[in-house]
Amino acid sequence: MGSASRKTFLPLEPMSFKNESKEVIDFISDYYQKIEEFPVQSRVEPGYLSAKLPDSAPYCPESLQDILKDVNDCILPGLTHWQSPNFFGYFQANASTAGFLGEMLCSGFNVVGFNWISSPAATELESIVLDWMGKLLKLPSSFLFSGTGGGVLHGSTCEAAVCTLAAARDKALKKLNGWENITKLVVYASDQTHFTFQKAAKLVGIPPSNFRLIETNSSTGFSMSPQQVALTIENDIKSGLVPLFLVATIGTTPTGAVDPIGELGKVAKKYDIWFHIDAAYAGSACICPELRPYLDGVELANSISMNPHKWFLTNMDCCCLWIKEPKFLVESLSSDPEILRNNASESKSVIDYKDWQIALSRRFRALKLWVVIRRHGLANLMYHIRSDISMAKRFEEFVAKDERFEIVVPRNFALVCFRIKPKEEIEGNELNRKLLEAINSSGKAFMTHAIVGGIYVIRCAIGTTLTEQRHVDDLWKLIQEKAQSLLMEKI
Amino acid sequence: MGSASRKTFLPLEPMSFKNESKEVIDFISDYYQKIEEFPVQSRVEPGYLSAKLPDSAPYCPESLQDILKDVNDCILPGLTHWQSPNFFGYFQANASTAGFLGEMLCSGFNVVGFNWISSPAATELESIVLDWMGKLLKLPSSFLFSGTGGGVLHGSTCEAAVCTLAAARDKALKKLNGWENITKLVVYASDQTHFTFQKAAKLVGIPPSNFRLIETNSSTGFSMSPQQVALTIENDIKSGLVPLFLVATIGTTPTGAVDPIGELGKVAKKYDIWFHIDAAYAGSACICPELRPYLDGVELANSISMNPHKWFLTNMDCCCLWIKEPKFLVESLSSDPEILRNNASESKSVIDYKDWQIALSRRFRALKLWVVIRRHGLANLMYHIRSDISMAKRFEEFVAKDERFEIVVPRNFALVCFRIKPKEEIEGNELNRKLLEAINSSGKAFMTHAIVGGIYVIRCAIGTTLTEQRHVDDLWKLIQEKAQSLLMEKI
Repeated sequence: MGSASRKTFLPLEPMSFKNESKEVIDFISDYYQKIEEFPVQSRVEPGYLSAKLPDSAPYCPESLQDILKDVNDCILPGLTHWQSPNFFGYFQANASTAGFLGEMLCSGFNVVGFNWISSPAATELESIVLDWMGKLLKLPSSFLFSGTGGGVLHGSTCEAAVCTLAAARDKALKKLNGWENITKLVVYASDQTHFTFQKAAKLVGIPPSNFRLIETNSSTGFSMSPQQVALTIENDIKSGLVPLFLVATIGTTPTGAVDPIGELGKVAKKYDIWFHIDAAYAGSACICPELRPYLDGVELANSISMNPHKWFLTNMDCCCLWIKEPKFLVESLSSDPEILRNNASESKSVIDYKDWQIALSRRFRALKLWVVIRRHGLANLMYHIRSDISMAKRFEEFVAKDERFEIVVPRNFALVCFRIKPKEEIEGNELNRKLLEAINSSGKAFMTHAIVGGIYVIRCAIGTTLTEQRHVDDLWKLIQEKAQSLLMEKI
Repeated sequence: MGSASRKTFLPLEPMSFKNESKEVIDFISDYYQKIEEFPVQSRVEPGYLSAKLPDSAPYCPESLQDILKDVNDCILPGLTHWQSPNFFGYFQANASTAGFLGEMLCSGFNVVGFNWISSPAATELESIVLDWMGKLLKLPSSFLFSGTGGGVLHGSTCEAAVCTLAAARDKALKKLNGWENITKLVVYASDQTHFTFQKAAKLVGIPPSNFRLIETNSSTGFSMSPQQVALTIENDIKSGLVPLFLVATIGTTPTGAVDPIGELGKVAKKYDIWFHIDAAYAGSACICPELRPYLDGVELANSISMNPHKWFLTNMDCCCLWIKEPKFLVESLSSDPEILRNNASESKSVIDYKDWQIALSRRFRALKLWVVIRRHGLANLMYHIRSDISMAKRFEEFVAKDERFEIVVPRNFALVCFRIKPKEEIEGNELNRKLLEAINSSGKAFMTHAIVGGIYVIRCAIGTTLTEQRHVDDLWKLIQEKAQSLLMEKI
């Protein structure tokens, strides 16, 4: 098995790496060029792909051309095109050239930065870029490395939730002096909070019956009532339970609602519970001074997370988590196996990010966020946010001006929640469900829905990287057209 | 904010995407070309990077050239070069052109495949490729979708551990009829098991005092004794505890040891506990018929995981998890928020992978593994494994033939654990620590260590994608040279 025979198989040879990579770049670039030609939501039926692909792996190597042909013929039809400018579903997942470049550098170096020594640049750039991002959001220095806190990149909000919940849990269990108290710990959120926090709380062993969903309603724009939270906490204390964790949201998933951070923070302080802010979607917007007030009160939080992979032109996946007292994260998540021991770690002068997250192995994600911030600069990043909000305002005005429709929840940020105003309230949900289905099955645009206060609303989330005003205008024409047909049918 | 002004900022314009991406491809290709020129382990000091970069984000966009210049000048010196052919540390993280291409497609499409409808191809390709991979490993059909089981891609073994532990936990708690029994659940592993399982067990709320580390020793090559496991289980049952989960390893991190799967499986069956196989490192090798016997007994497991991102030419991150009864995973991890409701999911005819993992959001990782398998074919993938093992054998022979050295643990796979044979045992650890430090600080190669049975061993993990026989030969010369200096010093 000498060098000679090895030459027959060179899976990372620089010249073929270069040539094949450029072929794929051309393929992806072509895809962006023709992305509007695809139906936004995939039209395939369950099981479509197994009919097109062999049921076991090939023995011999296949050519890149054959593989790309299959990507084109078999994979593209099965995609729901999140990068289409006509994608208005869920929350957007912003891709950008800069994000892609950062992802390529990450994948090309392919280092595993679990601790400082395993690639110092990976750890140090992550700390630096978390401080950059924190400063863009004007977070208090208590969350920054340049102050007394620090930040870490996770893959998802759920991961951030699992880690902060575990940190809070272990801090509490230490104080309560016994693991059996885990069944007494209680987590507070609203009925609009992302379900990922329920999942995370259950994952870390908190009984699902100890997860309190504070009810919200339209009178407060579906934001959480601090009084209600305090009342619920009092009740739990009376029952011998231990309030642990409160999560507030800036920009809820159903409607973009904003919880009153300042007031909730005071409640959290009063009862000495961990206060986490989930700004997954709308956090990005707070880089604009006119939107920064949404974060007022953040100084009362123990931790805050937001996802640059939603609205910050950063390709999947990238979630920033800042924490005031990283020691609680490290105490809960650290491990010190002999196999990873090294002088730098023992000196305590470095960060080992493996102790700030679930997994040991970790990708060099910081490169991606760093390239995104530098390539765009704060100026263009603000432009991006403002442009999306401006398009959402325009769309909101279209809706408001058409008396067949109504805005169900006042718009925050770039999410518009609307519906056809039903003649009879009882018909409203079915009517709007049909409208959404008609729009999505047209292939020309894609939106999703929510139900708030019993009302089915159509969510128009504006902010895909490629979306321009003409796409929003076309969307509104499409909605009007489909609504007209539906309303005609009814007559 | 019309289309006109939007034209000033086009962060995903296809032509600039193409041009800038190709520049980065050239940069990475150049990096591979000169990778042997860098010291393998970074020589920077803690804090080096903050001295080189500004402490806050730029307001104006910067050019790609400026960014790449900084990557070159500031980031590369801070990398420990995992893709260097002279990297023999930890376990390798195989990059390959194919893996990189798959990663680019994933990042380019940037779909978020949390459920089937959000991009059917992402879900379906993942199921297909997990079956392909399972068949390459000759897993019983009880683990495959084409049989009665199924698989999912996670980012890391720890994530797989958290999810399977949560599934086992919730299955047990349901049977025990009360969450308070969480403090009775016990997990079994060996003192060689990856520490990630301890971390995962604690994460899911199992008291750290209920994690049993079965002692191993050199007489069994540091593999776990089924008798010892059974005895420990019996003791726990007598104490009123509830045995929950047993993890066995194929290719432990310290020495590449293999636990006796078949015998351990019988113990697990007898006590009705969840049996997980961690084949993170060595699982890839089992695609070769001559190595497949290591997996004998896998039919007794409830779940098995392995990491293509280690030894299977798949860029970070990629962990395969197969499970016999996916329903337990789904029962533990599922969520059904209104906002994600759709006909396909309600029909129960599709898989929603969000219920098979921690996070909601998920990247289209399956593309990467699919491109890797197709581009290489089983033939070359086997060649890759066999070539590494052959180089490891050769290295092992070098060590065995030099009487100053000894092989401490018999080699399995492509990991060689050796040391300088000390004159006095008491000097052995310090002597070998110094040897490893001398090698690593030379910059010419990088290895890591383990301590087993009190003995400090140097681990030579062969299998970086670019490693050829000449690198292994050079490594041995370097080791001999540094050992000679050390032994001379001592005289």
